[in-house]
Amino acid sequence: MRSATGKAGHINALDLPRQATGWLSRFGAALARRDLDAALKLFGAECYWRDLAALTWNIKTCEGREAIRAMLEATLVAAAPAAWAIDGAARTNDGVVEAWFDFETAVGRGRGQLRLRDGRCWTLLTTLRALKGFEEPSGRSRDKGVVHGAVRNRQSWLERRAQEAAALGVTRQPYCLIIGGGQGGIGLAARLRRLNVPTIVVEKNARAGDSWRKRYRSLCLHDPVWYDHMPYLPFPDHWPVFSPKDKMGDWLEMYARVMELDYWAGTECTGARYDDAAAEWAVTLRRDGQTLCLRPKQLVLATGMSGMPNVPEIPGAASFEGRLCHSSRHPGGEAWTGKRCVVLGANNSAHDICADLWEHGAAEVTMVQRSPTIVVRSEALMEYAWGRLYSEEAVRAGITTEIADLTTASVPSRLLPAMQRPVYDRIRRRDADLYAGLERVGFLYDFGEDDAGIHSAYLRRGGGYYIEVGASQLIIEGEIKLKSPATIERINRRSVTLTDGAELPADLVVLATGYGPMNDWAAQLISPEVADRVGKCWGLGSDTKNDPGPWEGELRNMWKPTQQPGLWFHGGNLMQSRHYSLTLALQLKARMEGLPTPVYGLAPVHHLR
Amino acid sequence: MRSATGKAGHINALDLPRQATGWLSRFGAALARRDLDAALKLFGAECYWRDLAALTWNIKTCEGREAIRAMLEATLVAAAPAAWAIDGAARTNDGVVEAWFDFETAVGRGRGQLRLRDGRCWTLLTTLRALKGFEEPSGRSRDKGVVHGAVRNRQSWLERRAQEAAALGVTRQPYCLIIGGGQGGIGLAARLRRLNVPTIVVEKNARAGDSWRKRYRSLCLHDPVWYDHMPYLPFPDHWPVFSPKDKMGDWLEMYARVMELDYWAGTECTGARYDDAAAEWAVTLRRDGQTLCLRPKQLVLATGMSGMPNVPEIPGAASFEGRLCHSSRHPGGEAWTGKRCVVLGANNSAHDICADLWEHGAAEVTMVQRSPTIVVRSEALMEYAWGRLYSEEAVRAGITTEIADLTTASVPSRLLPAMQRPVYDRIRRRDADLYAGLERVGFLYDFGEDDAGIHSAYLRRGGGYYIEVGASQLIIEGEIKLKSPATIERINRRSVTLTDGAELPADLVVLATGYGPMNDWAAQLISPEVADRVGKCWGLGSDTKNDPGPWEGELRNMWKPTQQPGLWFHGGNLMQSRHYSLTLALQLKARMEGLPTPVYGLAPVHHLR
Repeated sequence: MRSATGKAGHINALDLPRQATGWLSRFGAALARRDLDAALKLFGAECYWRDLAALTWNIKTCEGREAIRAMLEATLVAAAPAAWAIDGAARTNDGVVEAWFDFETAVGRGRGQLRLRDGRCWTLLTTLRALKGFEEPSGRSRDKGVVHGAVRNRQSWLERRAQEAAALGVTRQPYCLIIGGGQGGIGLAARLRRLNVPTIVVEKNARAGDSWRKRYRSLCLHDPVWYDHMPYLPFPDHWPVFSPKDKMGDWLEMYARVMELDYWAGTECTGARYDDAAAEWAVTLRRDGQTLCLRPKQLVLATGMSGMPNVPEIPGAASFEGRLCHSSRHPGGEAWTGKRCVVLGANNSAHDICADLWEHGAAEVTMVQRSPTIVVRSEALMEYAWGRLYSEEAVRAGITTEIADLTTASVPSRLLPAMQRPVYDRIRRRDADLYAGLERVGFLYDFGEDDAGIHSAYLRRGGGYYIEVGASQLIIEGEIKLKSPATIERINRRSVTLTDGAELPADLVVLATGYGPMNDWAAQLISPEVADRVGKCWGLGSDTKNDPGPWEGELRNMWKPTQQPGLWFHGGNLMQSRHYSLTLALQLKARMEGLPTPVYGLAPVHHLR
Repeated sequence: MRSATGKAGHINALDLPRQATGWLSRFGAALARRDLDAALKLFGAECYWRDLAALTWNIKTCEGREAIRAMLEATLVAAAPAAWAIDGAARTNDGVVEAWFDFETAVGRGRGQLRLRDGRCWTLLTTLRALKGFEEPSGRSRDKGVVHGAVRNRQSWLERRAQEAAALGVTRQPYCLIIGGGQGGIGLAARLRRLNVPTIVVEKNARAGDSWRKRYRSLCLHDPVWYDHMPYLPFPDHWPVFSPKDKMGDWLEMYARVMELDYWAGTECTGARYDDAAAEWAVTLRRDGQTLCLRPKQLVLATGMSGMPNVPEIPGAASFEGRLCHSSRHPGGEAWTGKRCVVLGANNSAHDICADLWEHGAAEVTMVQRSPTIVVRSEALMEYAWGRLYSEEAVRAGITTEIADLTTASVPSRLLPAMQRPVYDRIRRRDADLYAGLERVGFLYDFGEDDAGIHSAYLRRGGGYYIEVGASQLIIEGEIKLKSPATIERINRRSVTLTDGAELPADLVVLATGYGPMNDWAAQLISPEVADRVGKCWGLGSDTKNDPGPWEGELRNMWKPTQQPGLWFHGGNLMQSRHYSLTLALQLKARMEGLPTPVYGLAPVHHLR
């Protein structure tokens, strides 16, 4: 990734702007002439072009010249990219020239980044940022708020807003319906509101923010505040580094309010069916005890990147006389002082829950680890992974949230493991004491099958790690007992029997066994057939655990068109939700306005769930 | 005021930094040697030093060398200002060299601005920005939000916050009590919260923001959005230029919540008494039907810059069969379609109310004007008055809200009229059509007694003007009838008789006759004696209407120590509330921490109310 303060390498600093400007100008000229051969000669033998809806109306990484050629052949005439212009100063980083640029397409304005090696393009990022004629009102173009002059029977803001809210979903259909009003649904709805796309967010909880408030008591964000801003309204500069869940809940509730979202809390989606003839959805909702049906053109599932809780069937479970529950149902350690607790699993939730039980004075807490976990200290991540883009230092170095997000987006998935491995080499050395301690007690840790670390694990399988904030130390010290590798073979009346034959007395058994796939939601809300048609969500096709090949190079089905017309998936962590909500919102807006949106390279389905 | 893009004048641009740096270094050296003669030689014959709590623990403008000498003689040893350092590039503006600088005192860190003419100081601003060792946690120093590691029985953020809120005012006394939870009280409380000063805000309305929501229906902010940001959390960039009142109400409610204020809504202050022996207040509150007494050390009245409604006694009022009310009680024009309405007064409220009645189809609306009004079109103010400091253009030119506020603060009150007159000359030419139209219908307008305009009128008397957004045009077109100069001599059963003998049939009479003085609140809540001891609030002593001399040069009693220990006044428009809330918060924090705060030049009282 781009170094925030990249020192000039072996290339003469005066040549840099010239190299980037020269390359971009030759590139633009070749595309203008529709001269693909000339354009492709500007790319190195190893090259990547990642496009976020600017040319492809898709999220797509083309790997290698031939893939780029095929993409250009299909998209160049319609997209008509032009007006390429370097923005700001080029930089070098280990001999790679990096520069930001602006460009236009037939219908939009874009921003991109290029990386040159030996004068040729290594990576190219193109992202759609705005649609011409449909720009978000902001700055100079913001609303005036009041019509000056005399207007008979004018409406006040309050009256207009109340009327609009009362009509939407009753006398006027929303263009877009978002199921799920967590940070993902809220941020997307804020973008759609600024783009004037009539949208309703449906949330089954009573208040915005409850999806955070209702989680286990000790939950805090593990990502630092600089990574977590919502669109348009960043946290103030005293906001804590790691937001506690209830504070985050309050922020989201207030955000939904001041952003004037049409947010239907206390509303459950009970079913959705696509009407092919009308090209719209029929969505059944339960609101205030009433059943109603909406007919949006677009349906977005923002129900969280996890599906239903994974609850393994364990023999004897029914006979257990203590409490047995999935981690999603475990409210916290308050009730378990002096009790014996067993937690199955060894990822983030398992660690947080074990530590919380210990802090509440449980008599015995045992973690049962089934397979290796990536463990990294929070401080090490801040120092080596987030810090360059998302930290106070980055802010002071002029790296805005948008630059940080685009920099993250500029790295092709294929290159990520190689870029991350050196980070983990440093972390391994930095925290040698931690890893020695974990080995000593038999905790199975690794840095991913190919040492690619947490970020890759997150993209591939959405989990498999623990960000150490204290539980690892308790394990090392024996305060949290460990059984590893093992699993629970059977549950008895007051104990569990492990696969290694041990029997652990238990008053509480928590199954921190993760969640099913995201399109479980599509199966439940729409139909198993539609869920199978769109196929597996998330994952890159890396052929590692829980992420079978073939290689796809982009997250499956996320923020981009799916095999089901009018169905979209939105989610991820706060950074992804913030960044990709723009890409998704522009795709929806373009469709609403009837702009041509020919999708290039709609991904085939290789896996059902 | 400083031009945002000041072109270099006759001074060689290369000399500029040298001049400012050289001056500041000589100045700092002279002060370090306690050599007042040398320091004073650095000032021109006409000179001003405005200090916001940095040296004087007061808000004070010293006019002329002798006043500066007296101030330094009294403050220099204790304040020990040092470490003067120019920050950023100096500029010239009409031959005046301007530069920003940082400095320190014995207990604090400050920021200031200097203006040099012919190498000597013309104006100097010194402001306290932080107290050493008590800096607001922000950026790098922000809270972590969670204690990493294992902590037995740790509290969650929610539990800690709930416990703290439950204890404050019950088992733990607040250090500071703020009466009035509008934008002023809320912004100050946010600053005090960041400074860790236990504070309760008392608001009689049911919800934060109600002080806006309950005003007349058509109310919008007349100041543009760039002027109106609250501390720490600026409006997002799509926020309307002129906030509608209910939207502002929602923002304030959200703000109070996410800033974690101890905000007691639905609570009325029924009395306050200073206990000299204990050096604290006994404040009686009515909350949830209960009476309780708090003992804060500091009491801030943030009840709005207006006191009680001014309701003139008009003969015959009791016999009136229509509705007669003060403007503060007039909810809007809805009920008056087809009715005959008379509005007494010709300032902002009177104009807004007349226009609103007309918009609702009142049969006849007559404004009765008693004396001249300053009228300026909103667009002209944006163009010539706000624009250079508070506008999208200013934002793009790098003028942060803080720079804009400090620039505004850097102008001594004495110089303001001369600086403003040219603005009004331009406005008079720009909007010649408006003024010709007003003359044609006999509307009395001016630009203040000395042509100093709206800003001066606001500082001197807190009113006396109308920012034209449509009502003047209705008056010119005869849609709103005008009687001027005139007043209501008596009220009859279904009409009013004016001083010119005319009789106007009336179903509604609105008295837009303004408000009494701010320390009416002190008289009502504390005692008439204390109100008289602190004397008149607001106003500069300009010896113009409603602002009797002698010249004081600063707003009376605002944001600074008063003749009553522990009693403070906070208020003003959103810009003033934002800017001076820091000055006030630091004065309160310093007292709480027991830092020495010797007040220089506590203003004597010349007028009781």
